[in-house]
Amino acid sequence: MKKIVIIGAGFGGLNAAKILCKNKKLNITIIDKKNHHLFQPLLYQVATAGLNESDIAYPIRSIFRNKKNVTVYKETVIDFDFNTKTVITDSNKHSYDYLIIACGAVENYFGKDKWAKYAPTLKNLNHAQQLRNKILNAFEMAEKTKDDNEKRKYLTFVVIGGGPTGVELAGAIGEMTRFTLAKDFRNIDPRLSRIILIEAADKILATFDDKLINKAVRNLESLGVQVWTKSMVTDIDEKGVTIGNERLESATIIWAAGIKANPLSEKLPGNKDKMGRIIVNKDLSIENYPDVFVVGDLAHFEQNGKILPGIAPVAMQQGKFVAKLILAELKGKKRTQFKYFDKGQMATIGRSKAIAEIKNLKLSGFIAWITWILVHIMYLTGFKNRIFVMLQWAWSYLTLKKGARLIIDD
Amino acid sequence: MKKIVIIGAGFGGLNAAKILCKNKKLNITIIDKKNHHLFQPLLYQVATAGLNESDIAYPIRSIFRNKKNVTVYKETVIDFDFNTKTVITDSNKHSYDYLIIACGAVENYFGKDKWAKYAPTLKNLNHAQQLRNKILNAFEMAEKTKDDNEKRKYLTFVVIGGGPTGVELAGAIGEMTRFTLAKDFRNIDPRLSRIILIEAADKILATFDDKLINKAVRNLESLGVQVWTKSMVTDIDEKGVTIGNERLESATIIWAAGIKANPLSEKLPGNKDKMGRIIVNKDLSIENYPDVFVVGDLAHFEQNGKILPGIAPVAMQQGKFVAKLILAELKGKKRTQFKYFDKGQMATIGRSKAIAEIKNLKLSGFIAWITWILVHIMYLTGFKNRIFVMLQWAWSYLTLKKGARLIIDD
Repeated sequence: MKKIVIIGAGFGGLNAAKILCKNKKLNITIIDKKNHHLFQPLLYQVATAGLNESDIAYPIRSIFRNKKNVTVYKETVIDFDFNTKTVITDSNKHSYDYLIIACGAVENYFGKDKWAKYAPTLKNLNHAQQLRNKILNAFEMAEKTKDDNEKRKYLTFVVIGGGPTGVELAGAIGEMTRFTLAKDFRNIDPRLSRIILIEAADKILATFDDKLINKAVRNLESLGVQVWTKSMVTDIDEKGVTIGNERLESATIIWAAGIKANPLSEKLPGNKDKMGRIIVNKDLSIENYPDVFVVGDLAHFEQNGKILPGIAPVAMQQGKFVAKLILAELKGKKRTQFKYFDKGQMATIGRSKAIAEIKNLKLSGFIAWITWILVHIMYLTGFKNRIFVMLQWAWSYLTLKKGARLIIDD
Repeated sequence: MKKIVIIGAGFGGLNAAKILCKNKKLNITIIDKKNHHLFQPLLYQVATAGLNESDIAYPIRSIFRNKKNVTVYKETVIDFDFNTKTVITDSNKHSYDYLIIACGAVENYFGKDKWAKYAPTLKNLNHAQQLRNKILNAFEMAEKTKDDNEKRKYLTFVVIGGGPTGVELAGAIGEMTRFTLAKDFRNIDPRLSRIILIEAADKILATFDDKLINKAVRNLESLGVQVWTKSMVTDIDEKGVTIGNERLESATIIWAAGIKANPLSEKLPGNKDKMGRIIVNKDLSIENYPDVFVVGDLAHFEQNGKILPGIAPVAMQQGKFVAKLILAELKGKKRTQFKYFDKGQMATIGRSKAIAEIKNLKLSGFIAWITWILVHIMYLTGFKNRIFVMLQWAWSYLTLKKGARLIIDD
């Protein structure tokens, strides 16, 4: 039996495994640090109390419970031996005939790692919980302090990075302050919170059409979010953010400004770009290692002169491509080249507010928002998760409440 | 305006506040370390992945969002000044005309506090998350180790304490191993897990009728739980539990053996029992402090020669009693004496398995289980929580799956 090892059960690894496991002659091993597949596009909703952790995450081994040729290990990969075709983890060694590396990206503070302490990022459920604690605690602190400067600091939320994650997070915080929390406090008015979205470039959501960007900015403003473009963060400390000569005091600073390759990239051969991503061959294999593939955020793949972005659809298509390529090769067929099919892009700003670009079709407002909802429900893993996410959303839509406003700390 | 300070938004404090807030001439301050009221009777279901945190917890300030005379502070009480009628917290001072202390109980290791590290308890959402991580991680570790002794250690779960919490927890773990996880692993069979419920006394669920206890024991056994009575734990370390001359190696040890008064009791006047509870007057006030009341697990109250147990119905009735007493006293009426009305007791062991004792009526099996469900849904806070808990239960009942099987750690 051929052995296939997949590292990472994100969109890339999971989609590869789902196709490969149908061939019962293959022995598939999935290795992931976490026990769950995470639907990352909705992670900001867990951080802002709109959804539960279990709504957007699903145990990996449950997905494959009826596929006896799939074994899942919750382990951390620490090294490789490409000569003996072995993956070395913190607890085991796994040999492979084919290896699919899909361990994604991590946050990038561009050399300012000390900022991480003050401006946490949002990549996993643990981050989401901590961020939720931090956001909700800021209001609790503002409610009880008698010092006006302190109050203002606690009611100032700074989101750094104007990509889809930053925009969605800022919009969700805005919505929370305007609606969910509006009546809950006695000494503060959450509607007077300041939410500032900081972007170094001259526009947010840079990959979108300018008209849609303008709509998104206006939508953000209607939720109390100020958009500061051409603003380069020069320092972050425990009390706030410095942007050149300007200074913002804030108790809640969130980093959504950039990603880089998973540090495991250092253990991999082949050419890398400056973000540490592996510059892969046209069939997504690593140069000189035809049995080792890289898919998703860790892969640097150029198409029509552009590097494919680190988004879920790219990872999904690459995972599926590699799985099919391996199945075909085992039947003696020749390898083909990967080609990304761009279905479009979308971002949501708040209740009934979103933008979507599908080929030449440009949508905004309610219709874009409904499209966004349908697409996200469709791609969620698990029937129960779909139902429960829809119910949570329906409930929030009708009541303006958010269900998971819990501070869970020691 | 009269000022009423309530410490703790558990069943006692919350029910007092709900009645007092209806009098708009009263100024009510609720102080709690947490931002949420917790429905503790279902906490074991969060720990065993059956429910989400937000299903059984509700933000305190949301409950009172439309009651402008209620102010909620997320603060920790550190001391009192009974001469100036002031409560001192980590961040503020709150003066009162009436004080209701409802801060409950904490785990009791009976002087063996070093056991806490190896045998954590289950009192709040943070505990529940850590316990869920621990239980689920044990299976992950068993799946990947190649050492049979290690495997057995990871597949042994020890619950110490045969009261309702211990029984419900042991039953839920049993159910998880028999049904939920049965097909998910390749190197282990979760159905061969050993779950051991240890009780020092000669029977579990000591307050129930012997026939019902026997049914509960048989139900536990059908889920793979061994019940060890007359077994006194003599030591706990990182590798297992010692019971006299016997030794159990286990990676998951849970402490459900006892509680004692919240340490805040040390700052309170009046007579205390050996568990640190305040021996209250017949009107639940502290001796010589008629404006200070103690309700719930922190109160020692005797009725018909027996101390009332630390359970939700007692706390609820006491909270309501004190609230009504204050309202009546403000109208010039004389104080009455508290009397607990015992509605019965129940415990659930697993799917379709429960026991219930309501006056002379003794129920078991499916009918007791349905009764248990209805009572718990009825007392849950929040319309949405009721709906979502019912949906989660319906889904688990039909599919035998559990929704929140996530390990969320660093």
